[in-house]
Amino acid sequence: MNTLIKWEKGLEFKAKGESGFWVPMGPNPIEGKREAVAATPMELLLMSVGGCTAMDVAYILQKKRIEFEDFWVEMGSEKADTHPKVYTSIHMKFVFVGKGLLMKDMEQAVNLSADKYCSAGIMVGKSARITREIEIREK
Amino acid sequence: MNTLIKWEKGLEFKAKGESGFWVPMGPNPIEGKREAVAATPMELLLMSVGGCTAMDVAYILQKKRIEFEDFWVEMGSEKADTHPKVYTSIHMKFVFVGKGLLMKDMEQAVNLSADKYCSAGIMVGKSARITREIEIREK
Repeated sequence: MNTLIKWEKGLEFKAKGESGFWVPMGPNPIEGKREAVAATPMELLLMSVGGCTAMDVAYILQKKRIEFEDFWVEMGSEKADTHPKVYTSIHMKFVFVGKGLLMKDMEQAVNLSADKYCSAGIMVGKSARITREIEIREK
Repeated sequence: MNTLIKWEKGLEFKAKGESGFWVPMGPNPIEGKREAVAATPMELLLMSVGGCTAMDVAYILQKKRIEFEDFWVEMGSEKADTHPKVYTSIHMKFVFVGKGLLMKDMEQAVNLSADKYCSAGIMVGKSARITREIEIREK
């Protein structure tokens, strides 16, 4: 066993992976009259795709000694209307803030992650069309 | 935009989805000499698959007024040896604790989630072979 999904109450769960950190999960607050109590499993799926590629990109840039002042990924997604409500498309906008950052370096890092390293993105990309764009902001 | 992946420092990020809860993410503690600081993106992917189906199952059982005293899912997984290190297989063991629980009810709920409702599982199932087993424990 490397991951445990533990029932808490109602539709609330917590999950623990190999690294030992508990992550709370709750049901979708939109589909019922429920208030959100934690991130939903489908939110975690998007986070895994975005986090995986963001971490790759940060790693590649750090290895190349390219320094950014800030960095984030804005993600949008669309789901199927009927069950199973899989993601049909995911868009990721990579925003880098810093001085003298070159688009070709950012593109190379993003593409290397997308094509080779980001396992979560490559898995989810079998179902959803994933698109990417890059923005560089001089601070 | 419905999900934000925000760089914190080094290879640490935090992510926020539609429900507004921040989830910290950290790099794999095994592959380097790093200590774990948070769940990794690939851990979140497994959690999304397990949490999605666990939540479906709890929902279906609650709708049918089938009461369990405890419930968890133990997950095992295998990854490819080379990049991209996608999950190649995922095993889920559903453990229900309670009095008078019937295997056919549990199987029906687990199968309904697997076949129809669990979007995360259906997406990840395009890459990884997902297997399931059920155990019922009288308390």
